[in-house]
Amino acid sequence: MEPKKDDILRVREIIRPYVHRTPVLTSQALNRITGSDLFFKCENFQKGGAFKFRGASHAVMTLSEEEARRGVATHSSGNHAQALALAASMRGIRAHIVMPETAPGIKVAAVRSYGGQITFCRPTLADREATLENIIEETGALEIHPYNDYRIIGGQATAAAELFEECEMPDCLITPVGGGGLLGGSILSTRYFSPDTKVYGAEPEQANDAWQSFREKKLIPVNNPQTIADGLRTSLGSRTFPIIRDGATDILTTSEARIIEAMQLIWERMKIIVEPSSAVPLAVILDHPALFSGKKTGVVLSGGNVDLYRLPWSEQDAGKNKN
Amino acid sequence: MEPKKDDILRVREIIRPYVHRTPVLTSQALNRITGSDLFFKCENFQKGGAFKFRGASHAVMTLSEEEARRGVATHSSGNHAQALALAASMRGIRAHIVMPETAPGIKVAAVRSYGGQITFCRPTLADREATLENIIEETGALEIHPYNDYRIIGGQATAAAELFEECEMPDCLITPVGGGGLLGGSILSTRYFSPDTKVYGAEPEQANDAWQSFREKKLIPVNNPQTIADGLRTSLGSRTFPIIRDGATDILTTSEARIIEAMQLIWERMKIIVEPSSAVPLAVILDHPALFSGKKTGVVLSGGNVDLYRLPWSEQDAGKNKN
Repeated sequence: MEPKKDDILRVREIIRPYVHRTPVLTSQALNRITGSDLFFKCENFQKGGAFKFRGASHAVMTLSEEEARRGVATHSSGNHAQALALAASMRGIRAHIVMPETAPGIKVAAVRSYGGQITFCRPTLADREATLENIIEETGALEIHPYNDYRIIGGQATAAAELFEECEMPDCLITPVGGGGLLGGSILSTRYFSPDTKVYGAEPEQANDAWQSFREKKLIPVNNPQTIADGLRTSLGSRTFPIIRDGATDILTTSEARIIEAMQLIWERMKIIVEPSSAVPLAVILDHPALFSGKKTGVVLSGGNVDLYRLPWSEQDAGKNKN
Repeated sequence: MEPKKDDILRVREIIRPYVHRTPVLTSQALNRITGSDLFFKCENFQKGGAFKFRGASHAVMTLSEEEARRGVATHSSGNHAQALALAASMRGIRAHIVMPETAPGIKVAAVRSYGGQITFCRPTLADREATLENIIEETGALEIHPYNDYRIIGGQATAAAELFEECEMPDCLITPVGGGGLLGGSILSTRYFSPDTKVYGAEPEQANDAWQSFREKKLIPVNNPQTIADGLRTSLGSRTFPIIRDGATDILTTSEARIIEAMQLIWERMKIIVEPSSAVPLAVILDHPALFSGKKTGVVLSGGNVDLYRLPWSEQDAGKNKN
């Protein structure tokens, strides 16, 4: 069942001992550049480096004893894998993580450091799903889907709920949208805790399934989208789409170049590390001054897991930043 | 006159409208790695990107009207130049900044963005000083030295004073030491506001003038030291040295490799951007577990101005971080 007001309040109590209450930062420089009054909810400082730990810890901590004994499982090469491994380790249970053999070493290492048990597969969705099926059959582990699960959506909702306590009744709230767990949860928290706030989803043009689905009023997945925002390559699911269809003010898209520009602005001006997906909302704000200028705007910075050896700007671009 | 308790309290009131009260962050990951209980005062989030703005704004805001009309001047290629330009622009006066023609474009651009008037010179200390002399003669501007000035030392003292309000009576406080403004100010604030706290200066082995001077009990400058910690290449001055000689618990040095390792740890684990100089205290803590393990330790992260196009780790090193 879709989480209601009381459910979200209950989730907050359940996960409170495990999650960080992340800070809300402001930046005069970015306010000047955008003309908006921006409040950044810094989930890049969350445990596991992303908001994903909210949903994962909620799902894991509410398993029954019998379920917990069976362990949890997922296929993911991203932040959900780390979050689930960390939440499972906190409860002292097993997390089986299926990762493509092409996953970056840094992400493999992170899952291992949280105690996740990794099974590698070929880098196709079919092989990921088949490998996960096998593991579940062998171990009896419970699959925890990264977003198409009301426990996860309820967990992700807590980020916006916290934000509204420090940035009361903003005109707008904007979050990245990939599978829709964060945006869906944010829409629910807005409905119950800040109902006059408009909620926007920010998506790369090159992975614009939420944009398409929102306009067509039906679920239109994209296949193998290419975007630097690696957290946003997934498509909406059957549980996240209806919440977004009914509750989002709009889905706005932006270009790859703008995402990189926005990411650099956050690094340089705020001195914090965010991953490309986190920069998509600021990129959208830069693209749409008419929507956000003069508005009090909450922004969820979704995560900070980035390979410091492979940044999306290079020596060749260095001249752009010079006198 | 060396700032006393009342002076530091007065400086705090004077600069309060201009500076950020920067947050104090903690990191369970870094506590686990070091065995210490670390409280990071995040001056990388300070205006101008470094603690230097505290001293510069104090010096500029306490100029008489007549002095202010003459403008201020300094020679610097670093954070003091940006801080002085920014403070001067806030007061609406001129800042003349002498920079070597070899200064990185990113630093030139930053000083310009704050309205500083740049005069380039050849990259020798003699030419920097001669060029500054000329400007002062022509314009009547007042030189604001980056550290050897009690107004500057009093301003830098406020960072530790704030830290002690959120991290009460720590066992240790550790700051980087270059010219000694930050360490000197921190020693004074410790004396008046947390007298049982031990105060350490952290310095690169390759720029170890404070280490030498502290041991020999006399001022021993180093000439043209080579260290990645670009903020710490200066030597102690006649006003900072006596405070450090009499008040520091010790000066501890560390290697270039350890500085880079510590910088990476802060970026990866805390998801914040710090410059190499900021990482020197953590590098020292990693080198001296016996001194800091089990201790409540305040750490000043001095700044976050780093060229994102030229990070001190490279693709070739990427393997080190992998599974």
